[in-house]
Amino acid sequence: MVTRDQIQSKIDNLNKPKGSLGRLETLALQICEIQQTLTPCLSHPCHILFGGDHGIEKEEVSFSPREITWQQMINYTRGGGGVNMFCRQHGFKLRIVDVGVDHDFPECLISTCDSDTDNKIINRKIAYGTNNFLYGPAMTENEWQRAVVVGADQVDACHKEGCNIISFGEMGIGNTSPSSILMHLLLDIPLEDCVGAGSGLDSDGLRHKYEVLKQAVSNFHQRNQHLDATFNRGELEKVSFCGFEMAAAVGAMLRAAEHRMIILVDGFIMTACMLVAQTINPTVMDFAVFGHCGDESGHKRMLDAMNAQPLLHLGMRLGEGTGAICAYPIVQSAVNMINEMDNFQHAEITKYF
Amino acid sequence: MVTRDQIQSKIDNLNKPKGSLGRLETLALQICEIQQTLTPCLSHPCHILFGGDHGIEKEEVSFSPREITWQQMINYTRGGGGVNMFCRQHGFKLRIVDVGVDHDFPECLISTCDSDTDNKIINRKIAYGTNNFLYGPAMTENEWQRAVVVGADQVDACHKEGCNIISFGEMGIGNTSPSSILMHLLLDIPLEDCVGAGSGLDSDGLRHKYEVLKQAVSNFHQRNQHLDATFNRGELEKVSFCGFEMAAAVGAMLRAAEHRMIILVDGFIMTACMLVAQTINPTVMDFAVFGHCGDESGHKRMLDAMNAQPLLHLGMRLGEGTGAICAYPIVQSAVNMINEMDNFQHAEITKYF
Repeated sequence: MVTRDQIQSKIDNLNKPKGSLGRLETLALQICEIQQTLTPCLSHPCHILFGGDHGIEKEEVSFSPREITWQQMINYTRGGGGVNMFCRQHGFKLRIVDVGVDHDFPECLISTCDSDTDNKIINRKIAYGTNNFLYGPAMTENEWQRAVVVGADQVDACHKEGCNIISFGEMGIGNTSPSSILMHLLLDIPLEDCVGAGSGLDSDGLRHKYEVLKQAVSNFHQRNQHLDATFNRGELEKVSFCGFEMAAAVGAMLRAAEHRMIILVDGFIMTACMLVAQTINPTVMDFAVFGHCGDESGHKRMLDAMNAQPLLHLGMRLGEGTGAICAYPIVQSAVNMINEMDNFQHAEITKYF
Repeated sequence: MVTRDQIQSKIDNLNKPKGSLGRLETLALQICEIQQTLTPCLSHPCHILFGGDHGIEKEEVSFSPREITWQQMINYTRGGGGVNMFCRQHGFKLRIVDVGVDHDFPECLISTCDSDTDNKIINRKIAYGTNNFLYGPAMTENEWQRAVVVGADQVDACHKEGCNIISFGEMGIGNTSPSSILMHLLLDIPLEDCVGAGSGLDSDGLRHKYEVLKQAVSNFHQRNQHLDATFNRGELEKVSFCGFEMAAAVGAMLRAAEHRMIILVDGFIMTACMLVAQTINPTVMDFAVFGHCGDESGHKRMLDAMNAQPLLHLGMRLGEGTGAICAYPIVQSAVNMINEMDNFQHAEITKYF
């Protein structure tokens, strides 16, 4: 058993002014606590990208058309996406999982077994997209549970390969919409502060998106007014709005925490998934390292409300998990710091504090 | 000749929503302009760490004692410093240069020739620290010129090895003091907004530091009142306050720009050096990539005044150039993005803007 004090004391004795490596120091502390060690390590980093389509997309809440979801899924198998580039740069193994994309992928692109996942799509499709949540729940409770298992299974597969740091990404045209609503409902933040431009809406488009989401929330409250008292917070919200890729990510986060893995959290959508995950198990946040605060309106406010301190602020809003992987070298630096920097005594440097 | 429009058009055709890779996109644009190509590359990254002592340290303006400078210089030769760890992580070749440290290093630690710089100190000592600038100029014009040549020579050596991206760091107890004064004098920012806690002053210490620096500025104005009109801005200031390690860094930055190298700029002190460098040649800023905005009070304001957008905000204040090297993977990501991401046409993805 390693105590927080022991870890802090090791960090304070490295040959640098106390606290002078800033965020790297708090990060090293967190990682040592997760791994219960004074000599942490990162092994077999994995990135799981979950894809799914959204019924709400039919209400024209997104700048990008629905077909982009499946086109990009294929693009990832070819290595040409943003996420591929980041995975290559930082040595992440990539798993591409279809949890609910509205498309039949050609057989040649489908993974046949767990040792055939490179450049393939793992087919765990639950449906061809969710229902339009303007008129009813996005999915059934049974579908939710199945999607959660998809996520957990993928994490188990990574864990079996020796992975102890994992990140998640998503591809799903329309998925800033459910994320905004979850932020509004679970954090009591006014809806207008939760809705942003997504992949590029103009001000008319943004106004339309807001009106649709406002109506969806109003319909949700009306449908469930007689149930409110009997459900835990998050129970109804998650099935009412999440996409399949989001449900899988929630399941994946919860399972990663059970395995005591470091969870790199990406932008707006994955932060919303972490928000849902912590309604199910609050300790999941102990394992979360927030990679990036994006430009999507509301992301900063959601992070603040969750008391999360993201590592990067690079104005990215691509999704796919790119903001999480991009932050990986910072996590490595924190680990290197505590393992490789000499201490004052051994380096024969006057300790002046 | 590659135009800015050609570069921007290539970036806009990568398969992602326009602008969705945020700061990576503006960085890729800058790097392509520096290298005059649509397919940039980074080769042989080098880090030069200049060390020097400061006469002003005698006024107790620093939390750390003077001997830390030489002790840390030795520590770097052993690989135990923060800068060593970052250099190893990101594949930077490290050159440790004594431009004015108040110590005689043992012969065994001194580099004997240009192929013997690993784990050695390159001895280009000009003096055993600068004069105390409270009572007169920190160095003579001749010393300034010699220190500038030290920096330029080191950059030439890196350039000869094929380096096209370079960062600079410093070790010099007391060197936030001259940096604060340069910020005040060259940017017309009130001195109190330029003075910070350095390596860890408490509020009494900070007040004392401010009083000393205020007096130094007042003495400087008094000494030079009859000269003001005949000198360019920066001319008098640089010799009056800079340390030898800072003068060398200024020379290094100017030479790196001549070679069209990417210059990674570290924290408060190196930003102050860039400020001095641009009084000599304003185009040097075109080559500067600001790695990190540190916690030293005033750094953010100095960056804003220079219209500089740092890549990282990790609350680091170690110096040594750590903030610059830590940002290297972001620069790599920008380069990978423009080289590796597929475009809409080739990826067969609907272009929706």
